[in-house]
Amino acid sequence: MEGASVDHLAHERNKAQFDVEAMKIVWAGSKHAFDVSNRMARLVANDPVFCKDDRHLLGRKELFKEAMRKAAHGWRRINELRLSDEEASRFRSFIDEPSFIDAHWEMFVTTIKGQGNEEQKQKWLPLAYKLQIIGCYAQTELGHGSNVRGLETTATFDPRSDEFVINSPTLTSTKWWPGGLGKASTHAIVFARLKLGTQDHGVHGFIVQLRSLDDHVPLPGITIGDIGMKFGNGGYNAMDNGFLRFDDVLVPRNHMLMGLSQVTREGKVLESNVPRQLAYGAMVYVRQFIVSEASTALSRAVCIATRYSAIRRQFGSHDGGPETQVIDYKTQQSRLFPLLASAYAFRFVGEWLKLLYADLTRRIQSNDFSTLPETHACTAGLKSLTTSVTAGAIEECRKLCGGHGYLCSSGLPQLFAAYVPACTYEGENNVMLLQVAKFLVKIVSQLGSEKRCVGTTAYMERIEHLMHCSCEVQEAEDWLKPYVAMEVFEARSMRMLVACAQKISKMPSQEEGFSELSSDLAEAATAHCQLIVVSKFIEKLREDIPGEGVKDQLEVLCNICILSLIHKHKGDFLSTRSITPKQASLGNDQLRHLYTQVRPNAIALVDAFNHTDHYLGSVLGRYDGNVYPKLYDEAWKDPLNDSVVPDGYAEYLRPMLKQQLHNAKL
Amino acid sequence: MEGASVDHLAHERNKAQFDVEAMKIVWAGSKHAFDVSNRMARLVANDPVFCKDDRHLLGRKELFKEAMRKAAHGWRRINELRLSDEEASRFRSFIDEPSFIDAHWEMFVTTIKGQGNEEQKQKWLPLAYKLQIIGCYAQTELGHGSNVRGLETTATFDPRSDEFVINSPTLTSTKWWPGGLGKASTHAIVFARLKLGTQDHGVHGFIVQLRSLDDHVPLPGITIGDIGMKFGNGGYNAMDNGFLRFDDVLVPRNHMLMGLSQVTREGKVLESNVPRQLAYGAMVYVRQFIVSEASTALSRAVCIATRYSAIRRQFGSHDGGPETQVIDYKTQQSRLFPLLASAYAFRFVGEWLKLLYADLTRRIQSNDFSTLPETHACTAGLKSLTTSVTAGAIEECRKLCGGHGYLCSSGLPQLFAAYVPACTYEGENNVMLLQVAKFLVKIVSQLGSEKRCVGTTAYMERIEHLMHCSCEVQEAEDWLKPYVAMEVFEARSMRMLVACAQKISKMPSQEEGFSELSSDLAEAATAHCQLIVVSKFIEKLREDIPGEGVKDQLEVLCNICILSLIHKHKGDFLSTRSITPKQASLGNDQLRHLYTQVRPNAIALVDAFNHTDHYLGSVLGRYDGNVYPKLYDEAWKDPLNDSVVPDGYAEYLRPMLKQQLHNAKL
Repeated sequence: MEGASVDHLAHERNKAQFDVEAMKIVWAGSKHAFDVSNRMARLVANDPVFCKDDRHLLGRKELFKEAMRKAAHGWRRINELRLSDEEASRFRSFIDEPSFIDAHWEMFVTTIKGQGNEEQKQKWLPLAYKLQIIGCYAQTELGHGSNVRGLETTATFDPRSDEFVINSPTLTSTKWWPGGLGKASTHAIVFARLKLGTQDHGVHGFIVQLRSLDDHVPLPGITIGDIGMKFGNGGYNAMDNGFLRFDDVLVPRNHMLMGLSQVTREGKVLESNVPRQLAYGAMVYVRQFIVSEASTALSRAVCIATRYSAIRRQFGSHDGGPETQVIDYKTQQSRLFPLLASAYAFRFVGEWLKLLYADLTRRIQSNDFSTLPETHACTAGLKSLTTSVTAGAIEECRKLCGGHGYLCSSGLPQLFAAYVPACTYEGENNVMLLQVAKFLVKIVSQLGSEKRCVGTTAYMERIEHLMHCSCEVQEAEDWLKPYVAMEVFEARSMRMLVACAQKISKMPSQEEGFSELSSDLAEAATAHCQLIVVSKFIEKLREDIPGEGVKDQLEVLCNICILSLIHKHKGDFLSTRSITPKQASLGNDQLRHLYTQVRPNAIALVDAFNHTDHYLGSVLGRYDGNVYPKLYDEAWKDPLNDSVVPDGYAEYLRPMLKQQLHNAKL
Repeated sequence: MEGASVDHLAHERNKAQFDVEAMKIVWAGSKHAFDVSNRMARLVANDPVFCKDDRHLLGRKELFKEAMRKAAHGWRRINELRLSDEEASRFRSFIDEPSFIDAHWEMFVTTIKGQGNEEQKQKWLPLAYKLQIIGCYAQTELGHGSNVRGLETTATFDPRSDEFVINSPTLTSTKWWPGGLGKASTHAIVFARLKLGTQDHGVHGFIVQLRSLDDHVPLPGITIGDIGMKFGNGGYNAMDNGFLRFDDVLVPRNHMLMGLSQVTREGKVLESNVPRQLAYGAMVYVRQFIVSEASTALSRAVCIATRYSAIRRQFGSHDGGPETQVIDYKTQQSRLFPLLASAYAFRFVGEWLKLLYADLTRRIQSNDFSTLPETHACTAGLKSLTTSVTAGAIEECRKLCGGHGYLCSSGLPQLFAAYVPACTYEGENNVMLLQVAKFLVKIVSQLGSEKRCVGTTAYMERIEHLMHCSCEVQEAEDWLKPYVAMEVFEARSMRMLVACAQKISKMPSQEEGFSELSSDLAEAATAHCQLIVVSKFIEKLREDIPGEGVKDQLEVLCNICILSLIHKHKGDFLSTRSITPKQASLGNDQLRHLYTQVRPNAIALVDAFNHTDHYLGSVLGRYDGNVYPKLYDEAWKDPLNDSVVPDGYAEYLRPMLKQQLHNAKL
């Protein structure tokens, strides 16, 4: 991609005041991670089968057929190249098309690993690893999403035949949404209410074969299909999100996932000695993965908008000279640069979450569950925060590209449409925030007791100080001291939580209080999560970071992150008296100054994401900045331009123009 | 539509505490407007040609062909039914598909009316009215959007032949985006730099024939096509936004629009005695229209989300009873009800803008231009505010519908994709805000002089008071006094503007100040525009409004509008010390109380929009609430469900499952 004949952004790249190659390593996390990503991205980009240029032109059937083709070709390449698991996973991600194969690896395989017993793992995992079966994860139903306990599908144990009988008793119990279910999967992990006689034993997972392995036809009792078109052209429409109904479908007893609890031959439910919290471990894993994906999606949007802002010119021409690059306008900077800073911030908090998850896994293996609640809250909150911000930011980047951002060739419509479901799946964002808030209010209520606050809640131990401290900023530069910012974020979060807790305590019941104040609680949880993001960025800066000027740039970005959050949530900071109006105003002055510092480095800072043109899929975000000729070329490719006079002219336009409409057959 | 066998929302409708039929008249603006809309909406809804159910499944060519078919059929029906202009315009709007016919009526016809001279109007308007020609408005270019003065297309007068020679001298001068240009239009109003000899006389409009009226083939020297796919399936893709290049295209001298200035036979430019401000009048017209469309788009999204929130249930089940309707959750209410209130607020401010425009037209006709700058700023600002809020609100409503909002059958993806360009066209929203800010800062700088502040800036006359007054709210109920809210909004806006003006005055130059502080200026302009919205809602309540309980409901909505804005922009109100943290908190308490009051009326309040199921185009927003069976029916219609085993299984899935990929031809 860097091999283009003319680099229209060369003058921008020459301005950079830091070592871009070193920053690439920082972004990737390590030299090794960079190497793997770099190689895999280019393998995919250079393979014509993975071309995605005409994705927005394909009909539903063609899109799905392409998804199958890419999945099959990808699998062949992964085997031919003998890629490691890590490499294969990166390779698949650069194909950049949601498809059943993601559901297979990320949901089906992961769940069997996490919730199957040893025997089940030995039976199913080899089949799944070789793709002799394709699996999906069938949990949500037409009438039931976040509230898993409300699922209606039933699995009734029949002790005579030693089988479960699976049924969909109502229309709302129809399985609905599972990716890969609609057309591709041969198997599913179906979540259903376990029934033994008249007893309901809650929701459990069952491995159910859906389609014949000979001819792919659905098995008896199974009604299955695709739920239809979703948001966007392309988008998630390559994915066969499906529906599924059961009519007395039989599965053997040992198809119930028995890692956590099991049903005996006699029809008794035995809880295993593995604590049920283990199930939370899986959620922590998925959500930390989503946080790291958020920084990737955000970095793509920011990269497109930043490069195009340096190419696009508008107004400000003096005596016939060129107009001003839109990236030089403060309004553009004040919308774009905080998103650039957020991309880095989310990257670092995602990296830290990975370590946190590794630590959790180690502890759980030695039966230490002490950090689980805090880790769980932390990932739930950060999942919500980073996906909400990223979804909004992609749309903001589209707007920052003006009219042309609305063209599919900008890549931003595709990115947006494919990204937004992240706000809903794997824990709806508002439900997540309320869970976090509940956890935090509990911590607040226990302050002063023996219980210690751990990890990201440790700051609450200093409640006395945080409730009464005042921000020491007196001039704009004071805002650059990391401990000043930290304390301001801690004070705001602490005070919002305490205010909520106090209001709840005045309510007739805690339940009523939570319900009545849920909006305030969600805001307090957001404040806490923003504190985590900021503190992890600051911690990152304490590391030894090699490369000329790299740390300086990260410091600028960190301060932009801090001050733009304070500006955006000024109301919180002021109403909790964590800062004064004067200090807010000084922060804003400092922010403008920081924008000036980041400006010459902006292009290099998005180059550091190391995205290929293939992966970006955007004419506006091209590495070489050769935007206008390519937009023109892309336009000609539209099917409407196949003919000079459009199909339908004779039937519809001509009779209208010739005033012969009354006779026309329309 | 109301004739469904079971109304799943009947129990909700029975709760309403006001006269819904009376509210429908209030929403429509008058009994007459209601009658026209009601009749036209049903005419369109009952005509099978205007069915739009499968829009998201159509390819680009089919979409455009359908648009032509609907335009032709619509035109025939309009003539057969002898609809008045008003009726025809409503009829077209209910067809609810962006198409070249909109560009013809709203841009081409309007511009000739506004900028042509009498002779030109007499020649061109009858052709356009009868659709013997189809026209579009070709202003923006590939490299030039908001800055009209930067356009590059040239129209060079050749005195020998008495013609203009039109050229596209660069790639970036290619006309780009005009709706209807790509495939349908026979004519365009082309904006180009008028050149006489070596002299550049700025940008003027020229009527140019693009295609033969015999066979629709582009005329010599004209290169033309469609710019390609845009955001969304359906969306704006039924519209043939086009590109256009000129190579020595000749047009007669009298094809230059000569209403404002003209070129003589001898090649002299004469300015007419009509003031150039007239051109602003047209912009005021278009933008006030956009504001009124914003309330319509917002009302559609809110209607869908509100009805579905009453159908959807989640969590909160006690002893096996049904789960809680999601509309009963405070978090849902705190996101949804402010949008419901905004829909009404935008409706009323839109109505007021219509009157303002009528007043402006009367004044201009008697050569009174005194209110033009204020009216212009007002419409520019409200265009920006209402479209930004509406675009965000549609996406928020989609999220409020959970996962199902992501399905095309929810109607929200279509609404979003088709709506968001409103933030960019007819004045990019951030450019608009800065124009308003400039106007306001000028007013501030003239305070104390002879010049009086008129209309929406009149409050600035009370600068002394507003800079020093303090909000008198002492308990939550005090927030319900309209004058309290008004003064708080006035104080905030005044103080933000004065702060900007003071900072600018300290800068080396005013230009530099404007550039450096543009972000603060945009925020101040937003504050001023929100004040207008709030004040027009309050004024509306002073009218005599018939119908039981109608005024009470509007008062509740007005207060929600006020208090949710204060909550959202708490930072502004606190940092300008317009309110105290305690007062902000009381406002929030009052807001929760207001949500409880609006809850039983929510469904009736969206019924009052009187949207047909056809116009909503949403399974989730159906009048009868029969959501789940219809979602299931819709799913089956997807082309992927045409066959049980998907096309491509044999080539791609089977070889993978059977481990025969190495031999497969992919």
